[in-house]
Amino acid sequence: MADNKKMVEAITSMEEDFTQWYTDVVKKAELASYSGVRGCMIVRPYGTALWENIRNDLDARFKALGHENIMMPLFIPESLLQREKDHVEGFAPEVAWVTHGGEEKLQERLCVRPTSETVFCEHYADIIHSYRDLPKLYNQWCSVVRWEKTTRPFLRTMEFYWQEGHTMHETAEEAWAETERMLGVYADFCEQSLAIPVIKGRKTDKEKFAGAEATYTIEAMMHDGKALQSGTSHYFGDGFARAFDIQYTDRANKLQYPHQTSWGMSTRIIGAIIMTHGDDNGLVLPPAVAPVQLVILPIAQHKPGVLEKAAELKERLAKVARVKMDDSDNSPGWKFAEYEMKGVPLRLEIGPRDIENNQCVLVRRDNREKTVVSLDELETKIPELLQAVHDGLYQKALARRESMTYTATTLDELCEIANNKPGLIKAMWCGEESCELQLKEQAGVTSRCMPFEQEELGETCVCCGKPAKKMVVWGKAY
Amino acid sequence: MADNKKMVEAITSMEEDFTQWYTDVVKKAELASYSGVRGCMIVRPYGTALWENIRNDLDARFKALGHENIMMPLFIPESLLQREKDHVEGFAPEVAWVTHGGEEKLQERLCVRPTSETVFCEHYADIIHSYRDLPKLYNQWCSVVRWEKTTRPFLRTMEFYWQEGHTMHETAEEAWAETERMLGVYADFCEQSLAIPVIKGRKTDKEKFAGAEATYTIEAMMHDGKALQSGTSHYFGDGFARAFDIQYTDRANKLQYPHQTSWGMSTRIIGAIIMTHGDDNGLVLPPAVAPVQLVILPIAQHKPGVLEKAAELKERLAKVARVKMDDSDNSPGWKFAEYEMKGVPLRLEIGPRDIENNQCVLVRRDNREKTVVSLDELETKIPELLQAVHDGLYQKALARRESMTYTATTLDELCEIANNKPGLIKAMWCGEESCELQLKEQAGVTSRCMPFEQEELGETCVCCGKPAKKMVVWGKAY
Repeated sequence: MADNKKMVEAITSMEEDFTQWYTDVVKKAELASYSGVRGCMIVRPYGTALWENIRNDLDARFKALGHENIMMPLFIPESLLQREKDHVEGFAPEVAWVTHGGEEKLQERLCVRPTSETVFCEHYADIIHSYRDLPKLYNQWCSVVRWEKTTRPFLRTMEFYWQEGHTMHETAEEAWAETERMLGVYADFCEQSLAIPVIKGRKTDKEKFAGAEATYTIEAMMHDGKALQSGTSHYFGDGFARAFDIQYTDRANKLQYPHQTSWGMSTRIIGAIIMTHGDDNGLVLPPAVAPVQLVILPIAQHKPGVLEKAAELKERLAKVARVKMDDSDNSPGWKFAEYEMKGVPLRLEIGPRDIENNQCVLVRRDNREKTVVSLDELETKIPELLQAVHDGLYQKALARRESMTYTATTLDELCEIANNKPGLIKAMWCGEESCELQLKEQAGVTSRCMPFEQEELGETCVCCGKPAKKMVVWGKAY
Repeated sequence: MADNKKMVEAITSMEEDFTQWYTDVVKKAELASYSGVRGCMIVRPYGTALWENIRNDLDARFKALGHENIMMPLFIPESLLQREKDHVEGFAPEVAWVTHGGEEKLQERLCVRPTSETVFCEHYADIIHSYRDLPKLYNQWCSVVRWEKTTRPFLRTMEFYWQEGHTMHETAEEAWAETERMLGVYADFCEQSLAIPVIKGRKTDKEKFAGAEATYTIEAMMHDGKALQSGTSHYFGDGFARAFDIQYTDRANKLQYPHQTSWGMSTRIIGAIIMTHGDDNGLVLPPAVAPVQLVILPIAQHKPGVLEKAAELKERLAKVARVKMDDSDNSPGWKFAEYEMKGVPLRLEIGPRDIENNQCVLVRRDNREKTVVSLDELETKIPELLQAVHDGLYQKALARRESMTYTATTLDELCEIANNKPGLIKAMWCGEESCELQLKEQAGVTSRCMPFEQEELGETCVCCGKPAKKMVVWGKAY
């Protein structure tokens, strides 16, 4: 193809340089590129389509539980951000400040929202008066800005996209239940739609959200053994309600403060997809959110009837999958590489001989397994194979996590593992922050979470030897 | 209902005070409320659901034509905004400036995007190299910020939500065709989905977009006779391409500048819906975008079987419409008023006697027409009635526009109409900006557009008497 300037270049292998591999995949799969503003990414059409599928899936899960979307202002006045003490301490150092509107200097600085608890609370104070107004189950899809020093596409960017749910409830029990319920939604979404196994647990006080009483998290393990916090759900108690004067009349006609939660999942999850399923040929997308689930590649497309058949299949199969047909003049080999790079779960090859035999070849992205399928059976075979890709991805990720999760009962053992084996380490903990700091210092690990599913690995803290309170999963993290 | 604190209060009538009526509807229908930041609105769940329906409808129209969504950064460096001279002059006076990130003062100010031509162009310079890379048909859904002096919910807010399409083409012809095609998409959307008749035309140079060669517009007439610009589509030529160094190798292997368009529709369109269809009982929503198309109200709901029947209908009818059932203990009268205020297109009343007779009552929001319908026919009757509501709204709006559109052939006549009759005025124009300024001064009207469908009302300019070039629609505008 003399005319064809585009070439699919090989990417750095994971083994050689995992960080570079990640960057190569983001770029070559055309998910995102950097813009002229430091740390702000352009999410390209393929990445945006992936995010839209993630958003639509999650949004349907939220709405099925009664949540409503709302659109809150981008700006937060400085005085509003300062209302809740812990919260402002956590966020003020990393916000972008608007100081001028047009030619005029503002009387009060506005920050670009880093998260929206404060504006939600201000609104809740306006609209919550009676127990009849509760619960309020609101969510918004938006971008937020945090002034990060070092950034990487999807994993840590100054501007990122997310949803933030903010709910208010009559009782603490209800709010706790919501915090847990929404963590469950995230875990189900990761496992059912992204084929990513996750550990559900609670963050230690050191790692919790600024202003929260408790933070629940789902943690996933990446290819390189590092953990990635994939979604969080916070219980606030009535701390913000008190700071923002939100009160309601309860069923006994008494004034009460409502109890609050918030929960979020962001474009970081795209980083988790890349680093959980990707391989040395590029991206591997879980079928439920893949922008293209099946790519049809006509072989020897100049031969009579091939393009017509491919187009006919595209029409037909649009009913069972998101289909693309590529009839460009790139070579088949080039196309194979391109759609592998883009992680399309299934490839359908059809050439003159296949047409004669009323068949085609289906190739799975995850394991390159080929199946010759009768054209009459595609409507059943394709959904089956997409499910098989999903299951294969999930099982592979789960097996990897299990084989890379270790147990330590002494500090030496923990350091030894942390220094030599990428992965997660389960160990008992006394509950003191000093031990967290020491493990960070000596082993370079942080507490990822206290899993809901606790195990009794011993009776003493792996670090200080005092009586243990919880089993913690430790690890290096993104 | 002693226990029921909520009351549906009457709103100001249109006749009495149109501006107050508008504000009342926005508030009482719970579409939006103001936040603590001047000019920034909170779009409440009902308004957000309406916007989501608008967005999904438009988005499907764009995608069907091959447009892809992309997510661009919120911030634009000052130097980038300055690259195209006319553009920066138009926007710099009304942008919000970020000067600090965290504790640190930025070396270069960033503006919060007022529109994204500049960042799109920067990206296009990176990714457009050959005619094979064209056309690029990108769109983004986001919010933008313009530092407005006076604001009103939806009509003019500092932050507003919109989509902005930005496309690049090989030839001027193609870009002109795209500019026109997208205006057509907006016009079809307004007429088919919002039941709003629009006039398609071109803006005069005075009224065009900063940096564009030509701006096309659709103009709608509100209840009070004022025009509302409802969507615009711009042809840029290669001005931005030259300013941003975007060049491609054409089919003859020569370097060329591509030709550009952009087009946008915003949350302003919700203002247009309110002021086109609303009445003294509140909002009236066009069925295609109404968050709830049919509300089921059980009558005498304490009687045995009523709530069960209502719930059964809700289940059943979810297949043909977006349905809500209200079994709260508010009185039927209160519920009637509430769903009229919220503009729900159809109301279904069902009580014990209806159940006995296997029937129910359907009431249209637009004209309060009641139909008694057999429960067996609902699946066909409801879509028919929703279509009838749509058609009724469209015809009413069209008749109003026609009855309130006048023709003027002399300046006196034009002033006389402008001073005494709310509405639009068609009159011939010489093409000079001085006449536009004079008409603004003497009659208080601006040129809304030069309609694509021109009429020959005379041979001379209504203002200066020189030979006329175009028929213009003049009016007061939002």
